[in-house]
Amino acid sequence: MTHVPLRWADMDAYGHVNNVVYLRYLQEARVDMLFVHAPKQGAEQLAEGVVVARHEISYHAPLHYRAEPVRVETWVRRVGNSSFDLGYEVLDVADDGSRTVYAVASSVLVPYDLDDAHPRRVAHEERLVLESFLELDGPEPGKAAA
Amino acid sequence: MTHVPLRWADMDAYGHVNNVVYLRYLQEARVDMLFVHAPKQGAEQLAEGVVVARHEISYHAPLHYRAEPVRVETWVRRVGNSSFDLGYEVLDVADDGSRTVYAVASSVLVPYDLDDAHPRRVAHEERLVLESFLELDGPEPGKAAA
Amino acid sequence: MTHVPLRWADMDAYGHVNNVVYLRYLQEARVDMLFVHAPKQGAEQLAEGVVVARHEISYHAPLHYRAEPVRVETWVRRVGNSSFDLGYEVLDVADDGSRTVYAVASSVLVPYDLDDAHPRRVAHEERLVLESFLELDGPEPGKAAA
Amino acid sequence: MTHVPLRWADMDAYGHVNNVVYLRYLQEARVDMLFVHAPKQGAEQLAEGVVVARHEISYHAPLHYRAEPVRVETWVRRVGNSSFDLGYEVLDVADDGSRTVYAVASSVLVPYDLDDAHPRRVAHEERLVLESFLELDGPEPGKAAA
Repeated sequence: MTHVPLRWADMDAYGHVNNVVYLRYLQEARVDMLFVHAPKQGAEQLAEGVVVARHEISYHAPLHYRAEPVRVETWVRRVGNSSFDLGYEVLDVADDGSRTVYAVASSVLVPYDLDDAHPRRVAHEERLVLESFLELDGPEPGKAAA
Repeated sequence: MTHVPLRWADMDAYGHVNNVVYLRYLQEARVDMLFVHAPKQGAEQLAEGVVVARHEISYHAPLHYRAEPVRVETWVRRVGNSSFDLGYEVLDVADDGSRTVYAVASSVLVPYDLDDAHPRRVAHEERLVLESFLELDGPEPGKAAA
Repeated sequence: MTHVPLRWADMDAYGHVNNVVYLRYLQEARVDMLFVHAPKQGAEQLAEGVVVARHEISYHAPLHYRAEPVRVETWVRRVGNSSFDLGYEVLDVADDGSRTVYAVASSVLVPYDLDDAHPRRVAHEERLVLESFLELDGPEPGKAAA
Repeated sequence: MTHVPLRWADMDAYGHVNNVVYLRYLQEARVDMLFVHAPKQGAEQLAEGVVVARHEISYHAPLHYRAEPVRVETWVRRVGNSSFDLGYEVLDVADDGSRTVYAVASSVLVPYDLDDAHPRRVAHEERLVLESFLELDGPEPGKAAA
């Protein structure tokens, strides 16, 4: 769980946090997980290079600037041989436990060897760390259609 | 088709255009289609308010800063009663016709009444304009998994 | 004093926080002072509309992404009839009190009537609030030349 | 002279191009001058590393999003031993020659050796190229005060 502070300039001309900026929030949450928490547990390489192969995001409620950070829950959805998936939920949780969900998202990430400029396999220790964040029944981005 | 100029600051610390910035390019292409081209054809309301309900994007090749703009093809994939889908391809096309595809994406968009702060139905004239951009067999974002 | 968290994407292709992004940090500190602290003291209008007329900033040391926020000290340098000046210092203060200054800046701000789209005079209650933040001998942006 | 295209997201919640974004436009104009035009004339090193030591900018009129790029005039104001100054004007020039000036700015730039992470002197060939862009009587950022 990461608390991401909003910036006033995250709002667009409609006065809402712009849809693109949510991906920045996911990036911050991902950096927090992969650069800060995972290395503590022994997956230093993930902090060196991970490339985004895919994003999927659904927007559920508009978000306005306020001084309080927004909460981003981040978890691992899948660990493959050469990629893994993260899930995210951008939300507020009130004192009484009620939740306002702003967005749900998922990403496919590929470990990358920056020196060789080539994708690489998920290493054994990385798999162990990633699996410690595994959650199979988290929310998924909605498939809106009407 | 829109030509979106890159900005030097679109690159991140890895020296690539950051994955989040591609969504900015899609936004520019969308604004060009909905605010510039569609109104000329009679769908002024689309330019007033359209909300993003969903994005899906797959990344296929890294993009580096250069003086030349990148090409974004944009088309309509579906027109529903209260939403429609856009497809996008971010690419270079060389003089000999060869293509380098950087990303493929799709979005679900919802016409929105900004005064009422409520989603609204796709109007008849909007449907006609959107259908003139319809392309059913365009590329779709890849489903990477390994 | 505001603690502004960095974002990973604040870094440019050189791996430093880009010079433009410092102005975002100043904006955050200004919003914190004018939208959050000043209204509490009775200058609600400042939070409605203030336009930037001028910025001056000197850069003293490179800043790299880290999980810890950077400190921005903000103070009032001058209160005029139709504008006022803010001073800022972007810095780290270590536990032993030693300081690393990244940038020093100042801005000229103009109270603005958003409905009329016109500058307006500094109101009496605003002057009182702004003067409570007054500091005449703060650091000034350097005048580099060689 | 550089034509910088605006992006829709350059606007903030007030519906104006945000004051911070103007610095992005200056950065684009600078990159165009130092990375594109100067190297053609023999100052390749300037394109490798130049650090911003100082910015000064005054804002003269609000800028709104439109499909047409905005013009940024850039010139050299001073060439010193270890730094040089650029001047900029962000403006529109109408067909009848009338000018709308949005901002006037100046920057102090320091040639930088990225490998050594140290400032370096302006080389002889760089001086020649920079002096070809020299303009001593260009506009200067205003000193607003009232």
